[in-house]
Formats: sequence, structure tokens, C-alpha cells
Amino acid sequence: MKITEDKIKYLLQRATAEVISAEDLAHKLRGGQKLRLKEGFDPSFPDIHLGHMVALRKLRQFQDLGHQIVLIVGDWTARIGDPSGASATRPMLTAEQVKTHAQTYMEQFFKIVDKEKTEVRWQSEWFDDFMLNDIINLTSKFTIAQMLAREDFNNRYNEQKPITITEFLYPLLQAYDSVSIKADVEFGGTDQKFNLLVGRELQEMKGQPPQQVFLVPILVGTDGVKKMSKSLGNYIGVAEPPQVIFGKVMSIPDSLLNNYFALLTDVPDAELKEMNKTLEAGTAHPMELKKRLAKDIIIQLYDDSSAEEAASHFQQVVQNKETPDDIPLFKCTPEDKTDLKLLLLTAKLAKSRSEAARLIAQEAVSIDGKKTTDVFAPLKNGSIIKVGKRRFVKIVY
Amino acid sequence: MKITEDKIKYLLQRATAEVISAEDLAHKLRGGQKLRLKEGFDPSFPDIHLGHMVALRKLRQFQDLGHQIVLIVGDWTARIGDPSGASATRPMLTAEQVKTHAQTYMEQFFKIVDKEKTEVRWQSEWFDDFMLNDIINLTSKFTIAQMLAREDFNNRYNEQKPITITEFLYPLLQAYDSVSIKADVEFGGTDQKFNLLVGRELQEMKGQPPQQVFLVPILVGTDGVKKMSKSLGNYIGVAEPPQVIFGKVMSIPDSLLNNYFALLTDVPDAELKEMNKTLEAGTAHPMELKKRLAKDIIIQLYDDSSAEEAASHFQQVVQNKETPDDIPLFKCTPEDKTDLKLLLLTAKLAKSRSEAARLIAQEAVSIDGKKTTDVFAPLKNGSIIKVGKRRFVKIVY
Repeated sequence: MKITEDKIKYLLQRATAEVISAEDLAHKLRGGQKLRLKEGFDPSFPDIHLGHMVALRKLRQFQDLGHQIVLIVGDWTARIGDPSGASATRPMLTAEQVKTHAQTYMEQFFKIVDKEKTEVRWQSEWFDDFMLNDIINLTSKFTIAQMLAREDFNNRYNEQKPITITEFLYPLLQAYDSVSIKADVEFGGTDQKFNLLVGRELQEMKGQPPQQVFLVPILVGTDGVKKMSKSLGNYIGVAEPPQVIFGKVMSIPDSLLNNYFALLTDVPDAELKEMNKTLEAGTAHPMELKKRLAKDIIIQLYDDSSAEEAASHFQQVVQNKETPDDIPLFKCTPEDKTDLKLLLLTAKLAKSRSEAARLIAQEAVSIDGKKTTDVFAPLKNGSIIKVGKRRFVKIVY
Repeated sequence: MKITEDKIKYLLQRATAEVISAEDLAHKLRGGQKLRLKEGFDPSFPDIHLGHMVALRKLRQFQDLGHQIVLIVGDWTARIGDPSGASATRPMLTAEQVKTHAQTYMEQFFKIVDKEKTEVRWQSEWFDDFMLNDIINLTSKFTIAQMLAREDFNNRYNEQKPITITEFLYPLLQAYDSVSIKADVEFGGTDQKFNLLVGRELQEMKGQPPQQVFLVPILVGTDGVKKMSKSLGNYIGVAEPPQVIFGKVMSIPDSLLNNYFALLTDVPDAELKEMNKTLEAGTAHPMELKKRLAKDIIIQLYDDSSAEEAASHFQQVVQNKETPDDIPLFKCTPEDKTDLKLLLLTAKLAKSRSEAARLIAQEAVSIDGKKTTDVFAPLKNGSIIKVGKRRFVKIVY
């Protein structure tokens, strides 16, 4: 497991927010021992998007050097219902739901990380037998003030928003995971810094070498403003179809380009620097860069041909405004044919007759390439109806 | 289980700080149902003094009306080591030590409470099988802010003294005891108000009728200033010999008399009022009142004859400065006889030769009723050596 200083520098600096401590981790990497890399997830939230991909790519880089990934399924967190952030209690997931969600998560996880070189561990392995004595033991090592020092807890406390005592147990349970699997490095976003440091502290108390804390930057969503998040709708899911991923990447603001290339691709630093210069000087072609980015991401998540297909689909439908090759067929009734509003509704191109009427009036509907505002426009067998920029059906009867 | 309104008034007002709620409890008492009265203790502190006796007397009064006492042995608290107040961690008691301490506690407890009508329950009955899920369940019902509202926690937090997370679990475990035994009333000192109210709250959450909280006043110690406490040395233990209890009661300041009669005896309220008047007017004989108080307490803890004996011992030795009847014998060697300093040391009347020399020089030592400063004073077989006011030995050889 030999490693060059350049590689160490790349591992510890590219797509990295903070490493505690970078020096210790570099030393371990030079030492050549096989490291245990911890990544945990809460199966309550089984969807992986590009925001999570930043850490997973980093895991993969370590894995490719021969290190051991240990994926923790937070089935305790999920069965109980993570209280953080929420003020109302959440319904508990059943054991069956947890299994299904974990399955979903792992299918996405292994798009980026090598399944064969990953050890999957469930929290239930150690927490199913956790007794009151263990909890007392764990909680006696940390103080209320320490927990309230965490920024989000502190804010909520000062704003007099309720924090349950359970929520103070969460960082401790997560820390105990590190002890259980003897983690050498734990990975997470910068918002996980506090929790990961608790793990480090607990390992030391238990006589283990403290884990290195590897924090990756938080990815900004496709809106260019907020953290990427499913609930905000500004996300790109790793399991979304290539065409969807392509389209969403093409929609990001130019200002995100450099950041996305840095965090989500292996484009060399020197090239990134150059790219940034041309972007700032206004001599770059952002559209071309986005296409390159989209293809790079799809190749990582699918393969080369999927990336090519998605690119040509985009080119054809969106840029050339051509009709795509794979238009869904819609078999219409004689009645549908007589009323364009009804047709849009039954073909699910509009949600209601009134929306259909509005679309037609706004000239958003065309038949065989010609815009129409006539709800009684004649339709042939094989006519192509287009609504907005990208939605098509071919009618048959 | 019929009860008069006068009796209810006595039960709920005499030696009572606060009842939450007095109205509900009175209603229950009138209803005639058998109530389950909870009293818990931590076997880390197995000694019962008159401060604890205030609550135990109240328990006894309820018991005499036919209600059921449930004594909780806090063996979890003890095995783990109660962190409250202390900043350093305490060594855990072994299971064996817990048993011995609990035994010691109960011997004293049953001096006041009827053993036959008491149900003894150990926390381990429910906490030995307590799992992480139970803890999560329990902790999710209470907030950090609620706990920090407790005065002692609040003070420590503001003074930046550490509070472990474990300490926040304690009130919850104590509350869970109430749920486990379906307590109708829990008894404690006013300093337990917070914890007892948590029990009330948890019972309601678990669908049980909330327990009544019966708070008794904190007893001032024999110094007349601070809360009675073993560590402050201002206590009277219920297991101390009658003579010691008598002497200690006689030593309390006059200002405590009325309070001690109210909290530790059944002397009727009207009489207490009268006594208070004479004390304030300066027409009372405090010494006589103290004797009465001492005898009353000893009768409760021992019996009539022990009280009489303690009273006459006090009269003889302390007041009349007579030699008591039961002087311990000390068999001395020929060498001891030749040196009064050596004799005091070996008879354990002095801790060192230098203390012995000082006592002799200060005229604190007498032989057969005559003070001496001569270390070589001659001693007869049967001579009585007296040191200070109350320490005697009769020497034999």
C-alpha cells in the first residue's frame, strides 16, 4: 500500500473541508496500514444525492488504495425516529421498513463505492443488547454544557425551542459506533463535525486510538443558493435516470460550475484553475462545461454509453427543439379526438380541463410542430402533441 | 378505612411543607381506597437521621390508617454511583455492598415504619431488563430546558460546573419507579420537589393517575443553622444509643424546640402553640422541654424504659456531675500505674502522650473525684479516672 506525497495531498486537500488531524492521517497513510473508514447513514432517509456523493467519492478514493470501508446502517436511529431538527415526534419505522430503506440506500451507495470491499454493519449488532448500565456509562462521560455548545442545540436552546434529552444521546450513540467498529477515520459533511469529534473523544476514553475526522464540504443545490436537499427540491439524485441528471446539471447556474467540478469529478486541479480563469474572464463556454460535467457524473453513476445517450437526448430535444425518437404513444378514443382539452387531460399532459385550456390559450401546445390555440383542431392518426418544451405524446387510434 | 376531617387536616398540614395537590389527596383519603405510598432511598447513604424521620413519621401515620407503603431500594442509583452534587466520579458499590447497605437502612427504617405493612421493591426488578429502546422512550418525553429549570442544575450550569448527561437521567429513572409500582403518593423533602413532579408527569404520560407529591420540611441540624446532614456532623442518627440521642437533643439551641416538637412528635397543635407562647415570653423552661422532646423521640425509636434510662443517665452524669453506674473497667499493667500519661494513652482517654500531658496540665483529669496535675499520682485498685466532663474508667489490676 505504497503512496506518493502527491496522492496524499490530493486525498487530503481536494474536495475536503477539514481533516482532524490532516498530519496524523497523512502519517497513517504513509505507514501503509489498512485503515477502517467509517460512514454511517440513517435509513429513514434512503435517498442519496450529489451532496452525499462528495463524501462517497472520497471513500472510493481511499478504497481504491486498499483501505477498508465500514458502512454503518443506523437502524437504531431509524427505528426510534431521529428527533433532530423536528419538534414533533416522528412515527417509528417498522423493522421491515428499515430493511427496505437500507436496501434502497445501499443500491445507490454501491454505485459509487465498491461493494466487494465494503463491510456492512448494523447498529443493532451492539445496541440490541445495550443495557441501562451501558447508557449510564456512556452518558457519564459527557456534560450538558458540551452538548449545548453544539451550534444547532445552542440556537434552539436560546430560542426556547424544545430539545429532548434523547437528542443528546444521539451523538453518543454515533460515537459508540466508532468504538464498536474501531474506526480509524470517519467521514461526514461539515455539519457533522461535532458528532464526529465526540466519536474521537469516546474512543480515547475507551483506550482506542482516536479516529481521524474527515469533513467534506456541503454541496450547494441546483438553485445555486441553498444546501442540496431533497426537501428543498434543489437536488440531483444518484439513482435518477441519466436524462434527468443531464437535464438538471445543465440547469445549474454558471457560478456553481467550478465547485461542482472540484467536488464531483477528478478533473485535475491545474485544469480546474484554468477553467476558473476562463469563466471569470468570460471566455469560457459554460454550456459546454456543463455538458462535460453532466457526462462525467453520469459515467460515474452509470456508464459511458448512458452518458452519450443522455447528452444526445438533451441536444436533440432541448437544444435543437427536435422531436425525440422515443415519444410515448397515447391511444385515444373518438371522443378525445374531438376536444384538445380532453385529450391533454386523459393523456396526462394537463392536470385539469382548466389547466389544459390555459396551456392552449398560452400557446404552449403544438400539433405536429405547429402551435395551436384551437381546441377543436383536427388530429390525424400519428399526430405528435407537444406541451411546453419537452413533453410529447404521439396519438394513435 | 373511614377518616375524620380533623385527621385529614392533621395528616396534610402538620409537619408538611407542600402537597400537590392537597385537595386531590384529601379527596382520595375520604374515598377510603387503599393508597400506595412511595418512599425511595439510595443505599449509598444507609444512615437515617431525624431529618429523614420527618417523612417516615408521616408514612407511619398513613400506614396506621391502613395504607400501603412501598419502599424502593435504589440499587441502580447506588451501583452506578449517584453523580448529583459531586463533580468527581464515585467508586461504584458492589452488588454485595448494596445489599449490606440496604439491610442497614431497613433496620433503621423499620424503627419508625411497620415492617409487616411494607412492600419492599428493588429498582433492579425493572431496570435490570431496561433496554436502549426504553431509555429512548423515556428521554424523548422530557427536554433539556425542563431539566435545567431545576434550581441546582441551573446554578451549576450558570457557574460552569460540569453536569453529566447521566444526571439528567436520574429524575427520569426515579419517575419510572413511580410508574412501575403505580404510586398514589410519593414522599420526600422539599429538595425533592422537582424529581417527584417528574414522576407525576411521567405517570400521566403513561396513562396512570398522577401521583400526589407529599413534601415535608427540611429539618435544621443540631447547630440550629444548617440542614441536618451526616457530613456536616449536626445530625442525630435514629440508630444511635438512647444516651447519645438524649445528649444531642439536650444540646440543640432553644430556638429549634418548637420546630422539633412539630416535626418529630405528636404533641397536639394547641399545646405547641401554648409552648411557643411561653418560649417567646421567656416563661418556659427550655431544659425541661428538651428532656420531654428527647424522651418522646427515644420512645418512638426504642421504648419507654430506654427513654427513662437515658434521662436518668443525663441527670446523673451531666447535670449532677455524678459518677455513672456503668463505668468501663480498664485492666492496667504495673507500668501503666506508674505514669498517668501512659495510663490515659493505653486506656484510650488520650490520643497521644502529648495530649495526655496537656489534659493533665489543664486540670481536666481527676482521680477518685480529685483533680490532679501530678503525672506520678498514686493509683489504687478500683480508682476512678475521669477526663473532661463525661469520660470515665475504673482501673483494676
